[in-house]
Amino acid sequence: MALIVQKYGGSSLESADRIRAVAERIVATKKQGHDVVVVCSAMGDTTDELLDLAARVNPTPPAREMDMLLTAGERISNSLVAMAVASFGADVQSFTGSQAGVITTERHGNARIIEVTPGRVQEAIDAGRIAIVAGFQGVNRDTKDVTTLGRGGSDTTAVALAAALGADECEIYSDVDGVYTADPRIVHDARKLDKLCFEEMLELAASGSKILVLRSVEYARAFNVPMRVRSSYSNDPGTLVAGALEDIPMEEAVLSGVATDASEAKITILGVKDLPGEAAKVFRVLADNEINIDMVLQNISSLHNLTTDITFTLPIADGPRAMELLKALQAKEGWDNITYNDQIGKVSLIGAGMKTHPGVTADFTEALRDAGVNIDMITTSEIRITAVVREIDLEEATRAIHDKFELGGDEPAIVYAGTGR
Amino acid sequence: MALIVQKYGGSSLESADRIRAVAERIVATKKQGHDVVVVCSAMGDTTDELLDLAARVNPTPPAREMDMLLTAGERISNSLVAMAVASFGADVQSFTGSQAGVITTERHGNARIIEVTPGRVQEAIDAGRIAIVAGFQGVNRDTKDVTTLGRGGSDTTAVALAAALGADECEIYSDVDGVYTADPRIVHDARKLDKLCFEEMLELAASGSKILVLRSVEYARAFNVPMRVRSSYSNDPGTLVAGALEDIPMEEAVLSGVATDASEAKITILGVKDLPGEAAKVFRVLADNEINIDMVLQNISSLHNLTTDITFTLPIADGPRAMELLKALQAKEGWDNITYNDQIGKVSLIGAGMKTHPGVTADFTEALRDAGVNIDMITTSEIRITAVVREIDLEEATRAIHDKFELGGDEPAIVYAGTGR
Repeated sequence: MALIVQKYGGSSLESADRIRAVAERIVATKKQGHDVVVVCSAMGDTTDELLDLAARVNPTPPAREMDMLLTAGERISNSLVAMAVASFGADVQSFTGSQAGVITTERHGNARIIEVTPGRVQEAIDAGRIAIVAGFQGVNRDTKDVTTLGRGGSDTTAVALAAALGADECEIYSDVDGVYTADPRIVHDARKLDKLCFEEMLELAASGSKILVLRSVEYARAFNVPMRVRSSYSNDPGTLVAGALEDIPMEEAVLSGVATDASEAKITILGVKDLPGEAAKVFRVLADNEINIDMVLQNISSLHNLTTDITFTLPIADGPRAMELLKALQAKEGWDNITYNDQIGKVSLIGAGMKTHPGVTADFTEALRDAGVNIDMITTSEIRITAVVREIDLEEATRAIHDKFELGGDEPAIVYAGTGR
Repeated sequence: MALIVQKYGGSSLESADRIRAVAERIVATKKQGHDVVVVCSAMGDTTDELLDLAARVNPTPPAREMDMLLTAGERISNSLVAMAVASFGADVQSFTGSQAGVITTERHGNARIIEVTPGRVQEAIDAGRIAIVAGFQGVNRDTKDVTTLGRGGSDTTAVALAAALGADECEIYSDVDGVYTADPRIVHDARKLDKLCFEEMLELAASGSKILVLRSVEYARAFNVPMRVRSSYSNDPGTLVAGALEDIPMEEAVLSGVATDASEAKITILGVKDLPGEAAKVFRVLADNEINIDMVLQNISSLHNLTTDITFTLPIADGPRAMELLKALQAKEGWDNITYNDQIGKVSLIGAGMKTHPGVTADFTEALRDAGVNIDMITTSEIRITAVVREIDLEEATRAIHDKFELGGDEPAIVYAGTGR
């Protein structure tokens, strides 16, 4: 008998029928003898509908009120799931984030969990009940105001609750049945992975995989909570994310998969003085405006005039704002030019096996060469190689690398409707 | 400068545009120099939509979960109104029922307010902010669970908050601009009343007027909170409900209006033994099953066989269940027959002036006679006369009484779209 936390995403709860299907799964898990705690996202498009209403009432709504509004979505799905579970004869009790003891910082819209004190949830479990907890929400310790956890907040709620309750596993349900070696819409023989270590999953999430939010994996890694990615439409065991990179025996270390990301743009600043502190000026102005940059590359200095070029990538959404900020600095700093390109894509190869397999970088670049794909930038970490290519080459590059490292399975990947949400 | 509590019903908040119109009114009241506390119902059809979802997930949902579900509706309208108020530049803070200190009994779906401890609301007022409070909801003192107050719960929240804060007035906004001498859809020269005492309003509400819920008027009377019925579509001052019957000077006591009610059915039990305790058997079985009866009439005993007939009215919704319960007793009790009729209507004349005007009952019955309306049952209280008539005669009876007592105005009544919700 184990304690299992299950998190269901919005697409798994988009209708009364889907909610009943989810409830059946929850009750079946309980009947197998396990204790079950469930975390729910808002139903289907509820959050978008509420955001739309808010925009029509006030284009710049106060963040505190926005949190009060949005958390209604999880309260609705939460109570409906509890009702559905009750209809199958199981004892059940629902909890808001506050009732479940999710204590957060005061930052509305993007609060951080300070601690989870799940006394009431534990009481419900001890009484034999299934506990249903509203995801994405918490309560500010000082003001007692309702807060939300930002993007991926329900996943984070589930992992944090699992850590606080000492759960054996945290299952994340969506409409995708696991983590694949590549996006099955791009690579048709992509293979579902049985297991990944936390570091591999972190690199995948940071490289464009949408299946788990980076923050929830970081939380799971910090508290050593095994996560399992599963589909609410099938009984496939999914993909287990657990264990540390250093605990993988060398002979079992493999390459896990190829991640793609077309959500970034590239900015190049030409003619930056090659003096200490010049690059810092660029990154300080962006940081002060809360713009996160990803890859950075500084070319070697041009010897005859002692200037250099700085190139970096950033989310497309922040591109125009970053260009405005930098253009405002250009004259004062004496930069020659600033260029912007959002027609780029990132392709990354990830896997613990990279440590023990020499020549991976050579094979990676040769695969792209053979596919006729030009590499614009390239960076590596201990278990990842990433290349920036033209966006129109991204899919071809992904397939070339996937083939080169023989990551595919024998059968075409199953692609569910809505995969990738 | 006064402290004013304003309550807005669902039809006043049914769209983003309506919410902005309501916010403008709230801010205007604040700019007049008043402190303002606002209580919101759920938007338009939200509650019905949530009820429908719940029914599809579980036809007999647990009451605790139902309360968690339904209160999401008021949280949504509450935060949207707060956002809209903020967009007009006013300082504003929203509160859930729990945050506003609405402490209730544990009875989910129909909880009673035990006390209101509006410390946080008072702090917001003292800081110059407009406070927006979610209606219809509270928190169980013992379990800290979310509760709802049942039908008319938002009106009751508003009155209870007004009482706890010592407000000068509690304004109840809907799409009707006051209390009329009769339903304007039936009586075209019905006149809006400027003022009523609590007892008159209680009799009107108990006699079928839908404009204020009985319970909220009882609460206002108990704590002496002046209520004002107003329309969110106009600037009409509406109708003030305040003061005690005994404080009305005799020369100012008038007849207030005619109320109609087609929501009841009539049950007659024939051949009941004319012995002590026989009628009690009937009413005990109904009370034990939480069926409320309204008017009761026991005919004089038939001398030759010492039996009598008992007739009473009750909500149509409870009619079939009551008949089942009584039929089950019929053989044992030896009743001759039980008849059921839901084609009846109640017409009532109400007003403090009844005390000082002799002959009102005679005029009342003559008005019905002259209109060719047969009276089935008749009862009176200190300030009310009620007759049960055939449902098809109800509108004609209403007009006849309204004319007889010259309650009409010089102009046709204004009927807004949706009047009567």
